[in-house]
Parts: sequence; C-alpha cells; structure tokens
Amino acid sequence: MSNKIKQKWLFTPGPLSTSKKTKEAMMVDLGSREEDFIKLNQLVCKNLIKIASAKNYICVPIQGSGTFGIEAALSSVLKKNSKILIISNGEYGRRIANICKKISKKYYLLSFKEDETYSLDRCENFIKKNKQITHIAMIHCETSSGILNPLADIGNLCKKYKKKLFVDAMSTFGGIQIDFKKNNIDTLVSSVNKCLEGVPGFSFVIIKKKSLINCSGNANSLSLDIYDQWKHFLKNGQWRFTPPTHSVLALSSSLKLLSKEGGVIKRYNRYKKNYETLINGMEKIGFTSFINKKFHSPIIVSFNYPRNKKFNFDFFYKKLLFSGYVIYPGMLTKKKTFRIGCIGNINSLVIKSLLKKIKETLLIMRIKSL
Amino acid sequence: MSNKIKQKWLFTPGPLSTSKKTKEAMMVDLGSREEDFIKLNQLVCKNLIKIASAKNYICVPIQGSGTFGIEAALSSVLKKNSKILIISNGEYGRRIANICKKISKKYYLLSFKEDETYSLDRCENFIKKNKQITHIAMIHCETSSGILNPLADIGNLCKKYKKKLFVDAMSTFGGIQIDFKKNNIDTLVSSVNKCLEGVPGFSFVIIKKKSLINCSGNANSLSLDIYDQWKHFLKNGQWRFTPPTHSVLALSSSLKLLSKEGGVIKRYNRYKKNYETLINGMEKIGFTSFINKKFHSPIIVSFNYPRNKKFNFDFFYKKLLFSGYVIYPGMLTKKKTFRIGCIGNINSLVIKSLLKKIKETLLIMRIKSL
Repeated sequence: MSNKIKQKWLFTPGPLSTSKKTKEAMMVDLGSREEDFIKLNQLVCKNLIKIASAKNYICVPIQGSGTFGIEAALSSVLKKNSKILIISNGEYGRRIANICKKISKKYYLLSFKEDETYSLDRCENFIKKNKQITHIAMIHCETSSGILNPLADIGNLCKKYKKKLFVDAMSTFGGIQIDFKKNNIDTLVSSVNKCLEGVPGFSFVIIKKKSLINCSGNANSLSLDIYDQWKHFLKNGQWRFTPPTHSVLALSSSLKLLSKEGGVIKRYNRYKKNYETLINGMEKIGFTSFINKKFHSPIIVSFNYPRNKKFNFDFFYKKLLFSGYVIYPGMLTKKKTFRIGCIGNINSLVIKSLLKKIKETLLIMRIKSL
Repeated sequence: MSNKIKQKWLFTPGPLSTSKKTKEAMMVDLGSREEDFIKLNQLVCKNLIKIASAKNYICVPIQGSGTFGIEAALSSVLKKNSKILIISNGEYGRRIANICKKISKKYYLLSFKEDETYSLDRCENFIKKNKQITHIAMIHCETSSGILNPLADIGNLCKKYKKKLFVDAMSTFGGIQIDFKKNNIDTLVSSVNKCLEGVPGFSFVIIKKKSLINCSGNANSLSLDIYDQWKHFLKNGQWRFTPPTHSVLALSSSLKLLSKEGGVIKRYNRYKKNYETLINGMEKIGFTSFINKKFHSPIIVSFNYPRNKKFNFDFFYKKLLFSGYVIYPGMLTKKKTFRIGCIGNINSLVIKSLLKKIKETLLIMRIKSL
C-alpha cells in the first residue's frame, strides 16, 4: 500500500514536510548500543543544548510523542509536596492538567479564553493567594489556536515569586529563539518533528542540571522517567529502552540543515515570511483569523469558517488534499475553525501555491465572495 | 555525521537489520490525520491481528519502545483489586515487576534461575496458595538469555485456575507462531522492530476485546493508556498523540515482506536455520552456550566467555564491529556472556560470514583453541 502514497505538502503542526536529506538519513540500520549511535545521540543532545544556549542545562530525550515528553517531565520534576500552577488558554494547557490528574500530581488550573492571552494581573494575584505553588506551567505557542503566550512575562513572575517555570515549547523550539536564562526557565519540553523539522519518534526535555539532580524517585512510571534516563546516559551513553534509531538519524541530519540555514533566527525569518504570505493572502481572499493578530505566532494560524453557506469544510479539505495540500482541522471548543501551519521544510512560494489552490477550490465550490 | 555511518549487519535483539524496501517506505511525509495514513494504520493493525489469527482480539499500537507497550498494557489492564503473578527467569521478567512497583499495581514475583525455565509445579503451587492472583505474566522469549519459556504450559495453568494470561512476546511475535486461543492469551505485547523486521518507533498490544472493554479508567497515565487509545481509534481512526508516521510506513512495508516470505512459519524456518548455522559453527570453534540447548529459542543465543585468558570481549566486539558485524553484550547477572541474535533481514549465509569473521578475529587475538 505504502508505495501508492504520494508526497503532499503538509501545512500542519507536525508531522511536517521534511527535507529529502532528513529522510535519506534514515536509510541505515544502527544498533542501539553501537558506538556510532551513541556518539550520534550525544551530538544531537549537545546540539539541542547549543540551540537553547542553555548553560548548565541537560537534554534528556524520551521515546514517543510530545505528550509523552510532557508527562515524563511532569512525573519526574514534581514531588509529593510540589504543586504546579497550570496557566491555560487552550487544549494543550488543559492536557497538562489532565496529565497531572492521571499521574496524581497536585495542580491548580488557571484558565483563560481560547482567543486571548494570559492576564498577567490574574496570574500574579493567583500566585500571591496560593502559597503552595512551587512550579508554573505555560504553553509557549498554544498550537490548538496558534496564539503565542508571553513567555518573558511569566518568566518574570516566576523570578519574582521564586517559582520554577515549566514550558511546553512543543511547536516553537527551533523556530523561535528562546532565552533560557533571561526567561528563567527551569524545564522545557519540545519535540523533534516540529520546528526542528525531524521525523516523529521522540521528544526531549531541557532542564536545569540543578533541578534534574532532585528528580530521583519522583516518577510514577518506569518508562517516563527522565532522571533514570539521564543517569543511564551518564553510565554508558545508552537509552534505557530501545531508542527510535532512525528518528535520531533524521534529527541529526535536520539539525545540520538548521545550522546551514543560519540557525534559529534565520528559520524564524523564513517561518515569519511564510506566515505573512499566508495571512495576507487569506485576508485578500476574505478569510478572517480567529485570534487578534497581535497574539499570532509564525507557527500556525486558526481561520474562522466563512459565513458563506456554500462553504463546506469537508469538501474544501478533501479537494485541497487531493491536490496535494494538507491543511488541518480546527481544535477549538466553541468556534468552527481550521488551521494552516507555517512550519516545516516549506517557503513562501509553497504558501503562494497553496493560496492559489485555495482560490481555485473556492471557485469550484462556486463561492465568489466569503 | 550521519552520512559517515556505514551499514553493518546487526546480530542483536533489535533494532535489527531491515530490508532496503522497508527503509525506503519511510521516504515520504504523511500527515497524521490524513486519510492515507489512517487507512495505512488500520491495515497494519488488521494485519497484526491476522498474523495472530486472533479472533475477537483488538490491536492497539502505542508510541515508544516495547517497555512503553508493556507499561501501557499493565497500567490499563490491572485494576485496583487485580494482582498479577509475574513468572520470571531474567531481566525482562524483573522489569515487569519494576513497572508494577512504579505504577502502583499489586503483584507477586516468582523467580527462577536465569539458565532454567519455569518449574510448572512451583508455579501451580504458588497459584493454588495465593487466591488473590487475577493475572499471570510471563516472558515468551527471555531475550536477556535467549531462553524460550513454556507458553502452552502456562496457558494451561491459566485455563485451569481461571487466570488472565499476560504475555511479553517482544522478541517472538512474527517469528514464532503463537496460538492465542489454544494458549489462552488475554493480553500480548510485542514490538515492531523485532521479528516483524520494522524500524523502532512503537509497540502494540493485542488484547481480547472482552478484556479491553473493562480497561476504562484503570491507567495511571495519560500517554500510556490503551483503552483511551482504542476509543479514539473507534471515534476517528487517529492516534491520540502524534504517531511515528515513518515507523508505521516501514511496518506496512515489512508486513508485506513477511507475507511474501510465506508468513510466520516460513520466517520461523529461516530463523531456525540461522540459529542452527550459528550454534553449530560456534560449537565447532569451541564456544559453549549458557543455556541448555533444549531451552534455546531461534531468536538469540547467549554464549559463555571462553576460559582462554587471551580472550578479551571488548577487543573481540570492536574488531567484529569494525568489520561490519554487530554482536551484543550479555545481560546476565552472574555469568559473563555475550549474545548473538538470529533475527532480522539476515539468512544463514550472513551467519556463515559472521562465523568466518569470528574465526579470523580469534586468530588475530592469537587464540588457537578456546
């Protein structure tokens, strides 16, 4: 069946369109205890730390998707007497609360609307009132809406009130420069198949060494324990359990491409240009975005369903899919939206070709004006 | 760095040598919510059930290595009032006990020596004495030693005493025919990168539908919950969290190769021939195996370090590695051993070339007789 599958352009929050080189790097089988693999893995982790300019931080990869990484980090970082304040304005914020509930870690959930960013006053008041809070969790880019949340401001609150900052940077790491020290980050989790443009297989946690040392015995899981994994790396450089060797190979290649592109700042510029081409083009067609533009990220944009009754999203989606363009359904609780991602191995020319295809599709749907 | 990596032959318990076709299947990026991917994933799960000839069973894939699958299955299957008897003769048996401890599930651990298989009398007596037992866990092939444990006998005990059988078939599924009904299997966990000859990225649980229905709310984890994943598949065919799309593509290709080879029986015959070529050749050279031959599996063999003082395993290992042959260190607690695997996309000619290289390496080490 697989040989019938045609490559399409992916405008999704990951898995993304990756370069041919990245995929070609997977054309070899490596033993997970082989020196070649151990060195490759070490180099990859070292490069992730380098991207983060995170001195005195450790990078611990973990098998599975981003959610596995978030769960592993929460399970390992939070102790019995820890209590984490989760600031949420969407699905991924709520997910952190769900994880804490499932793994029996204490938490508060402070929720904001899906189309607004955090109110810093409400956050500060909440922190002042609830002295039990030891950690604060936030989502850098709430991928369900595309909103970019104020990392620096929450970082400052954490500094002021001496709380440990836990950042879900799933869809931003590698695409938006993140200053670990300035933003007072304690723990950050991201994935290899978003802005790093690798293929799915694992996520990783970047954590202050001082904090990681204190994670011993916290996890309620054998698999999802970043402390034990770190200790194992120190012992022999190996993953505790079978690593996704091919994904590691792909990442090692995609990290080289990131460096060749000129690092995170240049990649940000490309994504930003993708975003601007997309939003300008979509607005010209008549689409409106769900979030106020001042909160947009250059990662992914949520567009409202147009009011024109001839618009049928399923038809629109499938027609684009058939033409080789994969957009993404919405993920918001109250409003009908769809999403278009700006990340991955795509440039503004690809966005332009998508826009052209969208216009053609609307014509096929006999929609002249939205 | 990756382009400097040379393909070697892997004689390990996985990741293994896979076919070029299997790796080539990964040369495409698929959106995880795309219809092509959903169909591919459904086909893969259907084929896994077909290999198992397991009517009224459900296959639930889960991101991560085999251990992630084992933990997800235990977490989901065991309720608060369940108690699992873990029969162990090695590392992977002990690992199940470690998982139960970490995830707060009740268990008994019944241990046997690493070079002997289970005593059925001791098992039966233990079951008779401990009425709280609801489930029994066993390792089909204890990959740390290569011992093949008596699945049919434990299956009969489960039938006789009405216990649910939980099988770790990590390194046997797809390489040894397993009769789910006859062996009274309730839950079986395996991995895509062992006898199915796929690339690492996920494992899967095959479980009686009747049992899976009862797993709601049992898991102490958001990520590692096979019930919730199953429900999600029923809803929209999608993985709950980003799937390892490229590994699924690879498996879909490697399953076609399994079918082309003639199914599990023919694959077993190939592995068996690999095993016989290996054991005969190694014995001729003078090596002895750690386990009594009557308990050997055609999966992997543990060889004792020779007594000859000139034998230095590190040198031996590295010399073979340098020649393109990756063997595996031992994993036994008391005795110095190393392991050679018989599985993966290799045949007896490849085993013969390994044997030749081993002889040459011993000569380089100036070892004339072991």
